[in-house]
Amino acid sequence: MKKKVKIYKATRIKEGEQLEVDETVVEEAILHVFLNQQEVAALSCTPHDKSYLAAGFLFSEGFLKTKEQIKNIDATENRVIVSTDPSYEVPELLQKKGTLTSGCGKGKSFALWEQINPMEDVLIDLNFTLASEHITEAIFQFEKKSELFRKTAGVHSAALVQQNRILLFNEDIGRHNAVDKVLGESFLEGVDLKNKYLVISGRISSDVVSKLSNCGLSVVVSRTAPTSLALDMAQKLGITLVGFARGKRMNVYSFPLRIK
Amino acid sequence: MKKKVKIYKATRIKEGEQLEVDETVVEEAILHVFLNQQEVAALSCTPHDKSYLAAGFLFSEGFLKTKEQIKNIDATENRVIVSTDPSYEVPELLQKKGTLTSGCGKGKSFALWEQINPMEDVLIDLNFTLASEHITEAIFQFEKKSELFRKTAGVHSAALVQQNRILLFNEDIGRHNAVDKVLGESFLEGVDLKNKYLVISGRISSDVVSKLSNCGLSVVVSRTAPTSLALDMAQKLGITLVGFARGKRMNVYSFPLRIK
Repeated sequence: MKKKVKIYKATRIKEGEQLEVDETVVEEAILHVFLNQQEVAALSCTPHDKSYLAAGFLFSEGFLKTKEQIKNIDATENRVIVSTDPSYEVPELLQKKGTLTSGCGKGKSFALWEQINPMEDVLIDLNFTLASEHITEAIFQFEKKSELFRKTAGVHSAALVQQNRILLFNEDIGRHNAVDKVLGESFLEGVDLKNKYLVISGRISSDVVSKLSNCGLSVVVSRTAPTSLALDMAQKLGITLVGFARGKRMNVYSFPLRIK
Repeated sequence: MKKKVKIYKATRIKEGEQLEVDETVVEEAILHVFLNQQEVAALSCTPHDKSYLAAGFLFSEGFLKTKEQIKNIDATENRVIVSTDPSYEVPELLQKKGTLTSGCGKGKSFALWEQINPMEDVLIDLNFTLASEHITEAIFQFEKKSELFRKTAGVHSAALVQQNRILLFNEDIGRHNAVDKVLGESFLEGVDLKNKYLVISGRISSDVVSKLSNCGLSVVVSRTAPTSLALDMAQKLGITLVGFARGKRMNVYSFPLRIK
């Protein structure tokens, strides 16, 4: 089921004149994500690729580590139930949380940041490097791809990129959901994340950095701004953060050695 | 304490040339909101006007109904404790939730929408009407006001407006936090919300409509798009939803009778 838009009647007012029009509006629905019997999130999302979204959420928030932990995924209209191997246990850090709900499709524990030891040295894997020309090309492709945004002006996009090639692309009204759909697809389809990076349409905040780190990605690129906490976390977690990637320019905020 | 930005070193790459620059980055911090002994939210936010943010969150999410329920607000670096009158009880609907956390500064129960009876008739107060010219003027002022956005390109804004005059204005990295800061200020400063409306920079999703409804506001205006669920809710809750308000044009998606 790939419902992404609905048509609504609207009154357009223009220079004082009124006109009845049909408007294309992005679909929003509440998706309840269950991990076995436990509801772990109620996500306000665009209801397509719901299995990818649910799996991506569980993966990027640290509930799941490997695809093998999943026995079954059952997606219905408003609910995805991810069933695990009986030996699976919810990581201790995440056990005390109730259902996490969010209008932006996010429920972050912030536990990662609060657990980082500020005195500890960072181990950075510099095997993965990237040409700035490739980023420029990927951003150009990325912006052409967002069909739903052109239709509704109401969504965020995310892509998994290798060098200058977009491998996976998805969209959602929620900034984090777009990221989770892409991560969930790579997770479920067995796409190796090594030597790949994430391009996102929205700002880079601490929770995006946390999701990246939980998935073992080390580079994220956005056409817009980062936040201070995202930069502080990226610095401690060894992640390269690229902002304001537009045309042939970009700002590299951490570990610029990775960008050639 | 009005920390809003920090300066970070960055490497700017432009047409292959590298340059070391100082970049102004919007401040992000995690704010833990306590209602008496209970932590009810961990908000990723821009750490200014924290008491407004915490009170606005509790008000717009349905935890609090009147200013008189609050005995004391104690704001420290990462925590705001809102203490209530001993007779206060958390509304039943909200009791089962654990700490709600979100990168967008949101923790919505969605309970409102799931409780709406689709067969019930809507009672709409049409005493409050508004001239489209006033909306046009308010949007013009609104866009000039966002200083933080101009500095960092990383925040959302919200304003409380009467006719064409902006009464309250605030900004945050979180779309919902900007709304909550404005609602919290009106709540704590005793600003009557009757005959006033909300202007927001971000898209109108179901949670924004829910916040409006909890606060008794009946009109919301955005320069960008609404979602389908927001429109469905607005229709059932008697709320006028105006999208794509840019220059002298706008789309009125529900109850256009309120806009003259």
